Amino acid sequence: MNTFGTTFSITDFGETHGECIGGVIDGCPAGIEIDQTFVQKELSRRSLHNYDDAEGNNTRREDDRVRFISGIYEGRSTGAPIAFLIQNEDVKVNKENDGVLKPSHASYVLKEKYGHTCNEQGGRFSARQTACRVVGGAIAKLILRGHGIEIEAWAESVAEVAAGDTAGAVVACEIRHLPAGLGEPTYDGLDARLAAAMLSIPACKGFEVGEGFRAATLGGSEYNDRQTTDFRFLSNHDGGIQSGISNGQTIHLRIAFKPIPSLQINQQTIDFQGNTAIYKGHSRNDISVVPRVLPVVEAMAALTIVNFIL
Amino acid sequence: MNTFGTTFSITDFGETHGECIGGVIDGCPAGIEIDQTFVQKELSRRSLHNYDDAEGNNTRREDDRVRFISGIYEGRSTGAPIAFLIQNEDVKVNKENDGVLKPSHASYVLKEKYGHTCNEQGGRFSARQTACRVVGGAIAKLILRGHGIEIEAWAESVAEVAAGDTAGAVVACEIRHLPAGLGEPTYDGLDARLAAAMLSIPACKGFEVGEGFRAATLGGSEYNDRQTTDFRFLSNHDGGIQSGISNGQTIHLRIAFKPIPSLQINQQTIDFQGNTAIYKGHSRNDISVVPRVLPVVEAMAALTIVNFIL
Amino acid sequence: MNTFGTTFSITDFGETHGECIGGVIDGCPAGIEIDQTFVQKELSRRSLHNYDDAEGNNTRREDDRVRFISGIYEGRSTGAPIAFLIQNEDVKVNKENDGVLKPSHASYVLKEKYGHTCNEQGGRFSARQTACRVVGGAIAKLILRGHGIEIEAWAESVAEVAAGDTAGAVVACEIRHLPAGLGEPTYDGLDARLAAAMLSIPACKGFEVGEGFRAATLGGSEYNDRQTTDFRFLSNHDGGIQSGISNGQTIHLRIAFKPIPSLQINQQTIDFQGNTAIYKGHSRNDISVVPRVLPVVEAMAALTIVNFIL
Amino acid sequence: MNTFGTTFSITDFGETHGECIGGVIDGCPAGIEIDQTFVQKELSRRSLHNYDDAEGNNTRREDDRVRFISGIYEGRSTGAPIAFLIQNEDVKVNKENDGVLKPSHASYVLKEKYGHTCNEQGGRFSARQTACRVVGGAIAKLILRGHGIEIEAWAESVAEVAAGDTAGAVVACEIRHLPAGLGEPTYDGLDARLAAAMLSIPACKGFEVGEGFRAATLGGSEYNDRQTTDFRFLSNHDGGIQSGISNGQTIHLRIAFKPIPSLQINQQTIDFQGNTAIYKGHSRNDISVVPRVLPVVEAMAALTIVNFIL
Repeated sequence: MNTFGTTFSITDFGETHGECIGGVIDGCPAGIEIDQTFVQKELSRRSLHNYDDAEGNNTRREDDRVRFISGIYEGRSTGAPIAFLIQNEDVKVNKENDGVLKPSHASYVLKEKYGHTCNEQGGRFSARQTACRVVGGAIAKLILRGHGIEIEAWAESVAEVAAGDTAGAVVACEIRHLPAGLGEPTYDGLDARLAAAMLSIPACKGFEVGEGFRAATLGGSEYNDRQTTDFRFLSNHDGGIQSGISNGQTIHLRIAFKPIPSLQINQQTIDFQGNTAIYKGHSRNDISVVPRVLPVVEAMAALTIVNFIL
Repeated sequence: MNTFGTTFSITDFGETHGECIGGVIDGCPAGIEIDQTFVQKELSRRSLHNYDDAEGNNTRREDDRVRFISGIYEGRSTGAPIAFLIQNEDVKVNKENDGVLKPSHASYVLKEKYGHTCNEQGGRFSARQTACRVVGGAIAKLILRGHGIEIEAWAESVAEVAAGDTAGAVVACEIRHLPAGLGEPTYDGLDARLAAAMLSIPACKGFEVGEGFRAATLGGSEYNDRQTTDFRFLSNHDGGIQSGISNGQTIHLRIAFKPIPSLQINQQTIDFQGNTAIYKGHSRNDISVVPRVLPVVEAMAALTIVNFIL
Repeated sequence: MNTFGTTFSITDFGETHGECIGGVIDGCPAGIEIDQTFVQKELSRRSLHNYDDAEGNNTRREDDRVRFISGIYEGRSTGAPIAFLIQNEDVKVNKENDGVLKPSHASYVLKEKYGHTCNEQGGRFSARQTACRVVGGAIAKLILRGHGIEIEAWAESVAEVAAGDTAGAVVACEIRHLPAGLGEPTYDGLDARLAAAMLSIPACKGFEVGEGFRAATLGGSEYNDRQTTDFRFLSNHDGGIQSGISNGQTIHLRIAFKPIPSLQINQQTIDFQGNTAIYKGHSRNDISVVPRVLPVVEAMAALTIVNFIL
Repeated sequence: MNTFGTTFSITDFGETHGECIGGVIDGCPAGIEIDQTFVQKELSRRSLHNYDDAEGNNTRREDDRVRFISGIYEGRSTGAPIAFLIQNEDVKVNKENDGVLKPSHASYVLKEKYGHTCNEQGGRFSARQTACRVVGGAIAKLILRGHGIEIEAWAESVAEVAAGDTAGAVVACEIRHLPAGLGEPTYDGLDARLAAAMLSIPACKGFEVGEGFRAATLGGSEYNDRQTTDFRFLSNHDGGIQSGISNGQTIHLRIAFKPIPSLQINQQTIDFQGNTAIYKGHSRNDISVVPRVLPVVEAMAALTIVNFIL
């Protein structure tokens, strides 16, 4: 349940209220050079955040630091599982929203599924868990780099919202220099695996490959990607995937994210007993998943692709 | 690779050029009443099709017929695998497009992945394979019906195209009366599984849950689904899934399909040797995946949900 | 549950009371020459059986016949699932033991697990299901043959029993010319996978690799397999597997089978209601699992090995 | 590859040369009381060891200490993954056998499989890894205890060997109060899963359920377990498992272990370059896998059973 991937897998653990989070990467081939500076750089992209503190000063969140504890010997993977830990910041638990349902978040389903009536226990639902994905994705990228494959995500649009509100966003992602032939017909198509990977990111509500929903407005005579006599494609409406299999063109994805549920302002809600309550906002809260979600999107793409490459 | 699901799985097989297609359903609990009339009715929904034949007469494609060969005893499932066969129509292989790449379809990736240079061998990529999904989905629906769960898909829009062209379409799907608490945090969210299921349908290029891409244009204060003191929700922007887990509201999905690659008119393309060629069209070809894809969408939803229910 | 293998898998179905049994082989690489004469020959080894009929005449059971219905094109695998059917003999169900528990067999657990109180429904537990394994194993052997790997099983001993009784047996199996390095440390060792494969054969009660239980009586100075300066081994007490991984020597297995539960004579037992009853015997029943189990043992070895080879 | 189990799984990591080993337990239901004293006690059973140090003094190895870092809140499981660490002793790597093949161990296959020519990198093959299994097994036992299920292993016999040699051993294991109906017909039988679990323990070479190899010497009239009119069994030759499914009787297993490869005396071998070499022995080395393997056998039984119970 907390594992992504089969041939190359990451199993992660940890809650925001604990001492650390971390993960185990299994299936990394022996002999891969593990560039820890690169892994840390990827992780720092996700940590990056400036916010105005209570006094109105612009403050920078401290970077997460990854520490590898197994599977690497003299800078290279040994073929054994690679485990890593990321220390949690000084765990001063903020209890002001304790017992109160965060709107459009996991609080209610937590109660229904596990019987928890305490948001603390729902730490697995925190966006913080995505830090582990970034570490796993960075190792995957190091393997893909050896195959010449590049992955890049960027913010395509962010909703315009008023002060104190949060904003939805669309992220685009390209996977370049992927060979043709990756993916399986029927149920394990490359597009199906990428869709599952992206929808598993907190706040994701939509996925497109190639033209996506625009394809639904077109005719086949305009849409079809035709090939020239040297097998090159004249267009890429399919976004690099046909019948679930890569065709050698760049993979184009678009991913929709809803606004972050916690606002900077207070929200009307209920508590676990069903009384009206206030979910308190904070100026420290992010306004949108971008830019911090970008390395997460890339990580999920990398983790998906590496399972088809190995 | 040709199996969908874990607790309740379908493994299917067969090509359009063979004598039959079929599948094996594993994990169906013992004692379920298998209403074969219902299963056949579902399958017939997928077969349904009128077209103008070569002489211009409006003709009806003959229905597929499902035949169960194991796992059912006196009308009920025994707990053993349920195998079924669907006979192919009189297999008069149309060879006029042999050796020619169908634009925006599997021909090219077939060559790259398996070394096939004959479209006949790519029968697994044919939409015909989805008939097996409908049979598996019908069994899943019979189980879900016992839990009061209903699934319905309908065409929301079809592209307007000129005579002889094919048209993209958007399909909407609702899953009703699903209990709260289904789905796993992190990687096995209900939304992630549904996305993979839908993207695995031929010609699918996009997936949305709840507001989908519209969520990316909203602010959290407008988007968030708030609950009243009796835990009812005041809105359903999230489409019934929060943090990967069902919250008891109706699941709303939207799925984008591209235009069918084979047109009713001829298309310019190349052959497997890289020479320019014509891919011949037929008046018999479907104009859009709707309405025949609707029972397939419902089947994939049912197959996904039954794996979380059991 | 009815699937063996991951990379190369067989999912099978069918009961003795139905029209046919069969299976789906998934993961067979494209382009393998499927020698159907060889597959049929393997299947006939399992069918082979002479017995004295009611009139005392020595009679030969008719061979099973396999029929492939997908995944093969012009004699070669296409990469798509390979489905096959094996017709059941004229299904004249013998009802004389209906409602009566077969001693040391599945009747009782069937009742506890599925609520069946009819042996007919337990056809999945019949040794007949192993015919499907032999077909899957034959395809696996064709792949392994391309790697120079050979598998052979033989009866090492059969218990001496009086007329009308059944006899336990020990089967030996060798896997030759296997390269070193197959198998995973910890949980997916080659020996662990082979043990699971063999114990899944009906009536199997014990498994040994190399010296097996005799290893428990030895000292390390005598047992250890030492290597010479050209890396050759001076002995093979480990039976070709060390730390779960093949070392390039011949794999030696020994597998213990209990006597077949159905005797040629009547047995005292109870019925599903708990009354005393007689389970009727037949002169047609086999006396021992050998020789018919030999191709099954080889098939399970082949199915296991091919998953590590591919 | 380094994961055992599906519904309830353990993924472990770590090498003897690293700072710690550990694991992640996924699938533990929420609300289980995690008795950490019991877990530590189980782990200490595996650590238990007295040996004569270099000066001839009898010394006690220090106990391993388990530290949980996630998934537990106020003494109970939260439903999130349970991660734990076990610190390695002061890592003073003994280099005297560096570059030398340990006879009948993993050194050679390591070289063939991963290209390692350094035993240090083979830490995953060390018996130390089994400490993680004991922690996972202890959590599984806590769940099984709630179902009234007990597991006990004991040494049945140890080979008699001369001073300085190591000794093979047979371990017996009983699983008591297991309900009838656990296990699947065909490939996922309870016996097949238990066999794989036991063979995955380092040095295991044989497995028996019930009469095991003795069953091969018996006739069915003597062997068959008959039931009385109250469904009780008159014997238990089958060892509690029939057709892969538990029948409510006590499960009886016997497991054969070879002598530990490292002796207390020196052994003639070769190095990774193929030169003759000496593998140095130590008085500190264990003489047999018993008694330290007993909690490991129980752990593997518990991990197997809990996957069928949940």
